[in-house]
Amino acid sequence: ITLKGARLLQSAEVVVYDALIDAALLDEAPEGAELIFAGKRAGRHSMSQDEINELLRIKAGQHRTVVRLKGGDPFVFGRGSEELAYLAAAGVPVEVVPGVSSAVAAPAAAGVPVTHRSLSRSFAVVTGHLAAGEDENGGPDWDALARIDTLVVLMGLRKVQEVTRRLLAASRPADTPALIVAAATLPTQQTVTATLGTLAQAAAQSGLPPDA
Amino acid sequence: ITLKGARLLQSAEVVVYDALIDAALLDEAPEGAELIFAGKRAGRHSMSQDEINELLRIKAGQHRTVVRLKGGDPFVFGRGSEELAYLAAAGVPVEVVPGVSSAVAAPAAAGVPVTHRSLSRSFAVVTGHLAAGEDENGGPDWDALARIDTLVVLMGLRKVQEVTRRLLAASRPADTPALIVAAATLPTQQTVTATLGTLAQAAAQSGLPPDA
Repeated sequence: ITLKGARLLQSAEVVVYDALIDAALLDEAPEGAELIFAGKRAGRHSMSQDEINELLRIKAGQHRTVVRLKGGDPFVFGRGSEELAYLAAAGVPVEVVPGVSSAVAAPAAAGVPVTHRSLSRSFAVVTGHLAAGEDENGGPDWDALARIDTLVVLMGLRKVQEVTRRLLAASRPADTPALIVAAATLPTQQTVTATLGTLAQAAAQSGLPPDA
Repeated sequence: ITLKGARLLQSAEVVVYDALIDAALLDEAPEGAELIFAGKRAGRHSMSQDEINELLRIKAGQHRTVVRLKGGDPFVFGRGSEELAYLAAAGVPVEVVPGVSSAVAAPAAAGVPVTHRSLSRSFAVVTGHLAAGEDENGGPDWDALARIDTLVVLMGLRKVQEVTRRLLAASRPADTPALIVAAATLPTQQTVTATLGTLAQAAAQSGLPPDA
């Protein structure tokens, strides 16, 4: 967390948090602060996004400082933007305190920079969730993504087969270096280095269906 | 800065910093710590990258904790990866503490998320420096970048004309919403909202040469 984030947490009357964060962070909140869990429990949301939006609006009307605490960066596939839009429409003033995004931090923690002078001059970020299917407005453009120097696939582990298939189909060379990072920055962090081709083979042999 | 970054700063014997950071951060370093400026002065480097690399290696041999303090994220167009590679080759143990990247934080500070469910399912990051020309291994693939949902161009203000020209040439629609953020997160922050087309027109009329 940033110093600014920690300071806000220390002055919070209400903290609405989800499951991704380090639970020790909640100790920063003042004694007597109301701590509300809004994350996923055993794979399902304990609150719907609509419920979270409305909870934030109500609490903001009752308290001076309500902190919505999210892991990573709230605006990188975090649905933070939906909460911001809802509160803005309701006239609730919101300050956004950016965090460290795992899109950049996870590769960094494994010693791999997303850019490197004259070697990787651009990077793109997408979620693995979107490799198997599409949402109502179509999926991301995997052909274009395959042409960006460095591609970061968040939450990609369960979609390795689909992601590697799409990239290879888009003519990304099979010898492209590939890195998998799990539990980035935690003591349990694990990394695997491979190539796009060997990763695709391993995923196919593991027998996982494309959208397992 | 993150809590982890601040803690390391507080235990530093040497801090090598550059010009991008908030100078007040240096107050976090212990009294007696050696503070070495390695940034740009009036547009030119006070030290070459080779000199910085070698300085870090020497200081690391002499002290327990040397902090290389960089603004933003060291691995997002920061040349942090060159320093890491140099020190790794010299056998110097390095821990990377990721920061908040302006690639995500600057749009967020202006209230614009880089992703939004079913509207922007991927984002890409590139520097404006690379719009005008190429480095020794060719430039970034602007045709592919133009097809990513959200494109963040760092240090793009002086290259607006080239960047907009490349994106329009790659068939990005002229009515694509565009945002310019200057001095993001600072009290002097300024934002301009426009479209890709109006931005291209304004840049052309300002009379700046493409690589001004």
